[in-house]
Amino acid sequence: MTTEAIASPMATRIGQALDRLRERRPLVQNITNYVSMDIAANALLALGASPAMVHAPEEIDDFGRLIQALAINIGTLSSDWVAAMTLAATVAHERGTPWVLDPVGAGATRFRDASVQQLLPFGPSVIRGNASEIMAVAASCGLGLSAARPKGVDSANTTSEAEVLSIELARHVGCVVVATGAIDFITDGRRQAHLANGSPLMTQVTAIGCSLSAITAAFCAIEPDRFDAAVAALAVVGIAGERAAAQTARPGSFRTAWIDQLAALDATAITSDLKLS
Amino acid sequence: MTTEAIASPMATRIGQALDRLRERRPLVQNITNYVSMDIAANALLALGASPAMVHAPEEIDDFGRLIQALAINIGTLSSDWVAAMTLAATVAHERGTPWVLDPVGAGATRFRDASVQQLLPFGPSVIRGNASEIMAVAASCGLGLSAARPKGVDSANTTSEAEVLSIELARHVGCVVVATGAIDFITDGRRQAHLANGSPLMTQVTAIGCSLSAITAAFCAIEPDRFDAAVAALAVVGIAGERAAAQTARPGSFRTAWIDQLAALDATAITSDLKLS
Amino acid sequence: MTTEAIASPMATRIGQALDRLRERRPLVQNITNYVSMDIAANALLALGASPAMVHAPEEIDDFGRLIQALAINIGTLSSDWVAAMTLAATVAHERGTPWVLDPVGAGATRFRDASVQQLLPFGPSVIRGNASEIMAVAASCGLGLSAARPKGVDSANTTSEAEVLSIELARHVGCVVVATGAIDFITDGRRQAHLANGSPLMTQVTAIGCSLSAITAAFCAIEPDRFDAAVAALAVVGIAGERAAAQTARPGSFRTAWIDQLAALDATAITSDLKLS
Repeated sequence: MTTEAIASPMATRIGQALDRLRERRPLVQNITNYVSMDIAANALLALGASPAMVHAPEEIDDFGRLIQALAINIGTLSSDWVAAMTLAATVAHERGTPWVLDPVGAGATRFRDASVQQLLPFGPSVIRGNASEIMAVAASCGLGLSAARPKGVDSANTTSEAEVLSIELARHVGCVVVATGAIDFITDGRRQAHLANGSPLMTQVTAIGCSLSAITAAFCAIEPDRFDAAVAALAVVGIAGERAAAQTARPGSFRTAWIDQLAALDATAITSDLKLS
Repeated sequence: MTTEAIASPMATRIGQALDRLRERRPLVQNITNYVSMDIAANALLALGASPAMVHAPEEIDDFGRLIQALAINIGTLSSDWVAAMTLAATVAHERGTPWVLDPVGAGATRFRDASVQQLLPFGPSVIRGNASEIMAVAASCGLGLSAARPKGVDSANTTSEAEVLSIELARHVGCVVVATGAIDFITDGRRQAHLANGSPLMTQVTAIGCSLSAITAAFCAIEPDRFDAAVAALAVVGIAGERAAAQTARPGSFRTAWIDQLAALDATAITSDLKLS
Repeated sequence: MTTEAIASPMATRIGQALDRLRERRPLVQNITNYVSMDIAANALLALGASPAMVHAPEEIDDFGRLIQALAINIGTLSSDWVAAMTLAATVAHERGTPWVLDPVGAGATRFRDASVQQLLPFGPSVIRGNASEIMAVAASCGLGLSAARPKGVDSANTTSEAEVLSIELARHVGCVVVATGAIDFITDGRRQAHLANGSPLMTQVTAIGCSLSAITAAFCAIEPDRFDAAVAALAVVGIAGERAAAQTARPGSFRTAWIDQLAALDATAITSDLKLS
């Protein structure tokens, strides 16, 4: 089976999911790090979703009634925010609202690992991290012998090193796991896919990974199959990145062009550019 | 009376206010949400004001002596920040410093409505929100029968639906009320105006509304008539938006172009572009 | 001795430092203000360093083992953050990790001055502020008769007014002091240098000064002579600013162009553009 043979029906499904997202304009709550708030909100808006950054424990229950998805990102952590994240995950779990966990910097500190362990019981729909982060989360679940080499919030591992642990983690938690890198790996413990879209410039702009997690939550709001939702999010983010990189080789301009391309993206672009296998 | 007949002397006054703002360079304290901090600070700088983001209770009294205006925005709320906002509003009230309230997401949660009610007694000079937010603030003041349909932090109401409640709210609080949308509505309970400047792209970039509230505070610092100050802020933000939209149709580039146009704006641009009635 | 005669070997050293920074890609922890997080992270990435924004007391000790430098910036202060800053400075001091202090708004409130005094005993490698901030820090150390006229977070003093106090402060604390302005002044209490690179547009974009402090920390990670590290940081930031200003006269575009130029900068650009005396 060639790459194209798989990509073609999936490309159609991604295009339809994007149309549906723009039509329904899902409200996505983000409890995310300070660094990513601006770009994640702008990426969600550019794509066609409705972002809201809400984290006060006092209003999480009320706000939880309004949202269609939740993204939790542990980038700039503090104990207050872990409490808010835990409450939001609880509420999402009870109500069946899909939620995405971005375990930024997992493995770098015990506080991060403990925070992730506190959140996992509430059943994330998708865990999205770089290869080192995914391997560290797996290790903190007692899976495998961790070879994660996190470097602050950057990854020192390739996604191919993370594949086996990603599958184990997906089965252990019962969710979709996405390990991003030059080649992205997506699995729900049963199915798996590789995506080759994207550009090295995406690692030279802060919080594009965080924005991807937020966009994954937006797709979960309109696509019940979380594996498909995760693939769709990776595809639009990566294709927009490639198209932006065709316009500029510099990170400042690239950030702007990437947002522009998210807004410009349509089903035709996905069909023509998708590199899925 | 035609639109032009009204606009012409007002355009002149707005141009003069902008010149005065750039000459005096007012120091504007912002206690605002994390999402808007970067763009609001850059918008104030581009226009010619001096922004400062200061929220520690320990320094609000000291800092309150230095500022010419205050903007309070409840976007990313928490109980600590509500306490800081309340203290800053108290200090501004005591010293006669003009302050602007941006009730982001009012009506979406009880915590937001309670926070707004806690702040209103300290006499904001201007309340600026989208139509749903203004209607929700009015409702939480016991005015009218709320038909507000907030959608997260976006509006599901038009400003024409919000006009009657805006006037009632302005009279109830004793301030200027601005409901923004495709057509902006401004009232002090006695006078009213409609502004048709702006671009739909302004809703595709996060926190342009928050930046407008900060810019409204900057104009309050140099224009004692708060109705005129609010109109001036709306005019410069909307005209810059139109001019930016003439340069690009994409939200990433638009954000950059809007900041550029705020810096480039002068009295001539206002006279030629103002759509006030 | 002419300017060129001094600049030439220094330009070579700065170019070598930049190459080393890109090769080693130091992990720089930032405990900084909310306004600057996005631009500081992007500036560090564009230059070639690895930024991390980490401030939870629970993880400062763990994370401190991974980093090569630390930048502390008191822009949007609160008591919780002062505690985190103090802990991080303590850990850096114990481990010999270089750290940079950016005393944003020093002199504007007693809370800021007290926070700076709480941090100074932990031996910053470099203090970087505008002229008013440096003069205020010196004054709060009991040096000179302060003539600092801070205006919120902007400066009302020129760096030439701050020279004597900068030297006294450098000797008092035992660190490098950098006072930035149209002409930047750098001293370690013994050596001194003036840098004339930069553009007035740099003051029309928020947090370029904060980003400079973060970049100074990155250079301290790879250059044991902190005086040279500070000069290198000022040089790359200022030269990138000049080159960006040659592309655009507007602040929105300038912000993007400045990031682009940081990524594009190389030893040749430094040799040709450096204005050091």
